[in-house]
Amino acid sequence: MYDDRRILISIYSMINLISDTVTKPTPEMLEAMMSASVGDDVYKTDESINALEEKVATLFGMEAALFFPSGTMANQTAIKVHTQPGEQLICDKDAHIFNYEGGGVSFNSGVSCRLLDGVNGTITAEQVRSFINPPDFYHSPLTSLVCIENTANRGGGTCWDFREIEKIREVCDSHGLGYHLDGARLWNALVAKNETANQYGKVFDTISVCLSKGLGCPIGSVLVGSKKHMDKAIRVRKIFGGGMRQAGYLAAAGIYALDHHIDRLAEDHQRAKEIAAVLRKMSYVKEVGDVETNIIIFYLNDHVSEQSFLNTLKEKGVYLSGMGSGKLRIVTHLDYTDKMHQRFLEILHSISF
Amino acid sequence: MYDDRRILISIYSMINLISDTVTKPTPEMLEAMMSASVGDDVYKTDESINALEEKVATLFGMEAALFFPSGTMANQTAIKVHTQPGEQLICDKDAHIFNYEGGGVSFNSGVSCRLLDGVNGTITAEQVRSFINPPDFYHSPLTSLVCIENTANRGGGTCWDFREIEKIREVCDSHGLGYHLDGARLWNALVAKNETANQYGKVFDTISVCLSKGLGCPIGSVLVGSKKHMDKAIRVRKIFGGGMRQAGYLAAAGIYALDHHIDRLAEDHQRAKEIAAVLRKMSYVKEVGDVETNIIIFYLNDHVSEQSFLNTLKEKGVYLSGMGSGKLRIVTHLDYTDKMHQRFLEILHSISF
Amino acid sequence: MYDDRRILISIYSMINLISDTVTKPTPEMLEAMMSASVGDDVYKTDESINALEEKVATLFGMEAALFFPSGTMANQTAIKVHTQPGEQLICDKDAHIFNYEGGGVSFNSGVSCRLLDGVNGTITAEQVRSFINPPDFYHSPLTSLVCIENTANRGGGTCWDFREIEKIREVCDSHGLGYHLDGARLWNALVAKNETANQYGKVFDTISVCLSKGLGCPIGSVLVGSKKHMDKAIRVRKIFGGGMRQAGYLAAAGIYALDHHIDRLAEDHQRAKEIAAVLRKMSYVKEVGDVETNIIIFYLNDHVSEQSFLNTLKEKGVYLSGMGSGKLRIVTHLDYTDKMHQRFLEILHSISF
Amino acid sequence: MYDDRRILISIYSMINLISDTVTKPTPEMLEAMMSASVGDDVYKTDESINALEEKVATLFGMEAALFFPSGTMANQTAIKVHTQPGEQLICDKDAHIFNYEGGGVSFNSGVSCRLLDGVNGTITAEQVRSFINPPDFYHSPLTSLVCIENTANRGGGTCWDFREIEKIREVCDSHGLGYHLDGARLWNALVAKNETANQYGKVFDTISVCLSKGLGCPIGSVLVGSKKHMDKAIRVRKIFGGGMRQAGYLAAAGIYALDHHIDRLAEDHQRAKEIAAVLRKMSYVKEVGDVETNIIIFYLNDHVSEQSFLNTLKEKGVYLSGMGSGKLRIVTHLDYTDKMHQRFLEILHSISF
Repeated sequence: MYDDRRILISIYSMINLISDTVTKPTPEMLEAMMSASVGDDVYKTDESINALEEKVATLFGMEAALFFPSGTMANQTAIKVHTQPGEQLICDKDAHIFNYEGGGVSFNSGVSCRLLDGVNGTITAEQVRSFINPPDFYHSPLTSLVCIENTANRGGGTCWDFREIEKIREVCDSHGLGYHLDGARLWNALVAKNETANQYGKVFDTISVCLSKGLGCPIGSVLVGSKKHMDKAIRVRKIFGGGMRQAGYLAAAGIYALDHHIDRLAEDHQRAKEIAAVLRKMSYVKEVGDVETNIIIFYLNDHVSEQSFLNTLKEKGVYLSGMGSGKLRIVTHLDYTDKMHQRFLEILHSISF
Repeated sequence: MYDDRRILISIYSMINLISDTVTKPTPEMLEAMMSASVGDDVYKTDESINALEEKVATLFGMEAALFFPSGTMANQTAIKVHTQPGEQLICDKDAHIFNYEGGGVSFNSGVSCRLLDGVNGTITAEQVRSFINPPDFYHSPLTSLVCIENTANRGGGTCWDFREIEKIREVCDSHGLGYHLDGARLWNALVAKNETANQYGKVFDTISVCLSKGLGCPIGSVLVGSKKHMDKAIRVRKIFGGGMRQAGYLAAAGIYALDHHIDRLAEDHQRAKEIAAVLRKMSYVKEVGDVETNIIIFYLNDHVSEQSFLNTLKEKGVYLSGMGSGKLRIVTHLDYTDKMHQRFLEILHSISF
Repeated sequence: MYDDRRILISIYSMINLISDTVTKPTPEMLEAMMSASVGDDVYKTDESINALEEKVATLFGMEAALFFPSGTMANQTAIKVHTQPGEQLICDKDAHIFNYEGGGVSFNSGVSCRLLDGVNGTITAEQVRSFINPPDFYHSPLTSLVCIENTANRGGGTCWDFREIEKIREVCDSHGLGYHLDGARLWNALVAKNETANQYGKVFDTISVCLSKGLGCPIGSVLVGSKKHMDKAIRVRKIFGGGMRQAGYLAAAGIYALDHHIDRLAEDHQRAKEIAAVLRKMSYVKEVGDVETNIIIFYLNDHVSEQSFLNTLKEKGVYLSGMGSGKLRIVTHLDYTDKMHQRFLEILHSISF
Repeated sequence: MYDDRRILISIYSMINLISDTVTKPTPEMLEAMMSASVGDDVYKTDESINALEEKVATLFGMEAALFFPSGTMANQTAIKVHTQPGEQLICDKDAHIFNYEGGGVSFNSGVSCRLLDGVNGTITAEQVRSFINPPDFYHSPLTSLVCIENTANRGGGTCWDFREIEKIREVCDSHGLGYHLDGARLWNALVAKNETANQYGKVFDTISVCLSKGLGCPIGSVLVGSKKHMDKAIRVRKIFGGGMRQAGYLAAAGIYALDHHIDRLAEDHQRAKEIAAVLRKMSYVKEVGDVETNIIIFYLNDHVSEQSFLNTLKEKGVYLSGMGSGKLRIVTHLDYTDKMHQRFLEILHSISF
């Protein structure tokens, strides 16, 4: 009896809002994977990988692209390509590359991060300029790279002001710095702000984009940039162990997603806004961050225990991320259906603390 | 007309003997992949990955296992887990970890390789012992790890004498060294020598095995060892960017291969022996190395140009690896069918130089 | 005529307050150096080095000590001894190890710095506790070390509250973290706060102290800690190239300084306080930081140009450090005599802007 | 009574032939040191250091030079300046940089060593050429540097054929490789072969020379090269912790040695040849290597125990290096006087086994 109920919840009702990385391929994407033409990508003879890389490079108007098993590896490779050991990069204090890539910036590249105190994960050109170390003062590390993240994950899915992105490019140019975009959720920004990949390709030296978050692929990220940078990147990828054989199955999912899953991100954004609107009315909620894309950051009222809140939801089949001290995160995605959405809104109304 | 013929060759006749990495999933394996139950392996909730890791750990009688996107990453992670920067590992001069992993031992781990002059890729316990640096002489790097490779790729698919493997374990024990097996083609050795995974699990600290060579999977390797080592390995894998999301599609292929593709390696070995037997009779061949598994190393007679030999074969739809100075390599595998085999033997008989 | 005047200034009047690193040995120290008994320290047979190391270890009540050519190398070695690549250390945002050691933490150890927002270079145990990454969340670097600096250089020669130092020790203990003290100017703190080296030796795992700042030696720092840590440190020192031969000449200066130059630091502190008192009265000064030891940080009034202020002083033979935006630093030391002091106070009174 | 005899041995009779690193400054050198004009070399205001660096640069006809606390740091810095992590350098299997610098090539630079099987520590241009990895085959590390050692220490103080040195330059040029000379004992080669520093400066990108071996200084090495390379080197030196303050005391010794101690190396060479001649006649000696400079490598007869041989000499106040398996090394130097020499030859005649 109990077991049956559990199964029912898991099949019909489990609502996983922990991350957009939990999505599974749709039947159509799986079909695309299954019929993929593959080769051996270590010898660069996998047709599907080659097609995906060309597609992404074209989309951004950049020379070349390279497939990676993860966004972490795409970012870490880009950082390595732009820097030498001992140098310093500038990023926001909440940057994924500093906080969630296992300390890889120092491990893989021997590089330190100068963390800036940004707003919702975004920093200004003026901040960047003032934290560049003087290049002839050899006691301090040489500043050689700026990394930004759009949308900014820990910032709450924040979209950047494109004009500020361009201003930072100017600072990079005048100080000889590389400029990398961690675009794990760039697709969300493009849709939310009505921007194009091409305009980003014109500004950055390298951009990483993720296929396995909003786009719903099982595995994979792509790094785009100049031919010269990608020639270096393929060596670094080899060293990290990111060279894979018949990777075309994964690439086929990516191609499918680029063709079919970008525009629909607007639905995720709409649902996120609706969730935020409900949360704002609830007495157990203190504050809800601005929602621009598919991430909602909110804070419980002081008298509400984060753990009991999460437990209450869990009993109803809903899973969120608790970030500590009553701060919580919700992420909408491809596998969060309209039916789940209606049910989740009802649940939010029904609970009290 | 010409085009048609080309297509015919590519479909019916192309015989790719460059490596066993070129294999593609069989329909049954593809079916297993596409019906895989997946989750998010970064959160360790991918059922298929968990099942594969448990299956491999059990096979070797070791505590834990971890899935990797490549054999290079599995080896590089093991080396990092066993060493600290500045230390030295001992391996054969032809070891894959030194020659074909992009310089990763030094890049990723800051470790140097003491190369021993082995026979067909195998070294002796006595050699190992004599090249361990004295631990209190701090001018020299501290020796902390021995890595061997079975079968030895550059050695010609050589199988190790298991007694020597055990003797090296004794040297490692008496000097406090770690002991890692690069088992990219260990399955071939197990079949050829009638050995068990379990006996290897008893001797080594860590073992990497490859799913995408003889076993025919598109992507993936597995590292096995103690729980403690695997806990460290998952951190290193994260840093390299080897944490993947719905990796279960790849794991399902691995599970299928472990169940169905190990015993059949005997066929690859048998065909390799038959190819060697034919080569030995050909006037254009100077010498053929011993064939124990699925790799044949042979040398052309001095008057035969390596390039023209390769070209002649290519025109007939056959692809081999030239290793320079008239040394060539053939690798048999799952996609090298009996029909191709008969045809290839005929071709070898038919050509002359 | 001009030349003569220049020489007069350089001999009689040049007052270098840029740093306490500019001091030269006194005749007595030089005599001690010249008559040193030396050997070959790479073979650990240099008597003077051995005597210095034993003296410092005894002073701190710790097991062992090791001589280094610089404080940077002593710190970098300690950090390497306490950490593994990919891990994270916690320090104040103004820490010397992050800002002025060339990016060495990442280059030499592959370690990242979590910078805390302290007060005058000091941080609290509570801050430390709240920035330790959860050890089982492998996306984030493993926190493994806390480094503090006493006195805090960029903080303005600030002395730590010893009770807070002990509280951080408790945090380190409960989280399994190493604890290193950058004691480049620890002697100043001991004198200013009437503390003992021994009480510091009880609290920290490793401590670096500098012989070439307040103590007036030409070259050298010493790292103290457990025998086990120093055994690792000597390997790291070798790798950095810090093993020197007849280093006893430098050690002899160190022994002399420890015997004769510690108590006199009180004079440097007294003079620094007197300078600060004068500066506080001057109309061209906006603010003067608290002076606890031999460093004075002060700020010019908004209408006064930092560059013209520095130039005016330079014309009078006085050299200070400008830190940008009207912030300046003065450091008193062994070679700043009473005569210079009187003259400098007069100069401060005489100038106007 | 016993004590007195021990002192007599240590003062009058101890003959240390372990290495030329054990020398102590002569009274004249000590005088030069103690009257040195010094400053703060971290600010590049130490006159003696500046003078030494200029002197060495001029001697080699190269643009710039940089002082280091050790030859290891000079070599390690050069290697870092020429390479990027993951790359490979080519050197002889007996190279100091691989064997005696603590594993620094991998630790500091993330670089691997391709060891060649040379003759007495010297390799040929043809060997170098054949071990350069193909630059477009990214599975293998990129070869980017060749390092040679003159004289070759483990080779027995061997002098290179300058024509071969030039041929290797040609190989480096045609493959875009850097070329570094570990010239720890280059002065010995210059004297033995009647060569000039200038001719070496024309061939190499960087050269390290040691002041503390044959030249008799207590501490110090110098790296020479282009301005561009030295600008990078000063950053690396800072990161290793090799920036020192009043280093002029050490530089003054170096200047003195360059002026007074080069020509006299011929005496060390002559004595080494005489020792070798005696050894060749002794029944307890199996073989004596060619002696070109100040190092003698010889082998004991099979029936003679290395340990008892060393003990017998030690009882007579003579210290040599045993290298294992009956191989021994003698090094003559500035502190090995004619009186010691006569006594040592007598001892060699007097003992028997």
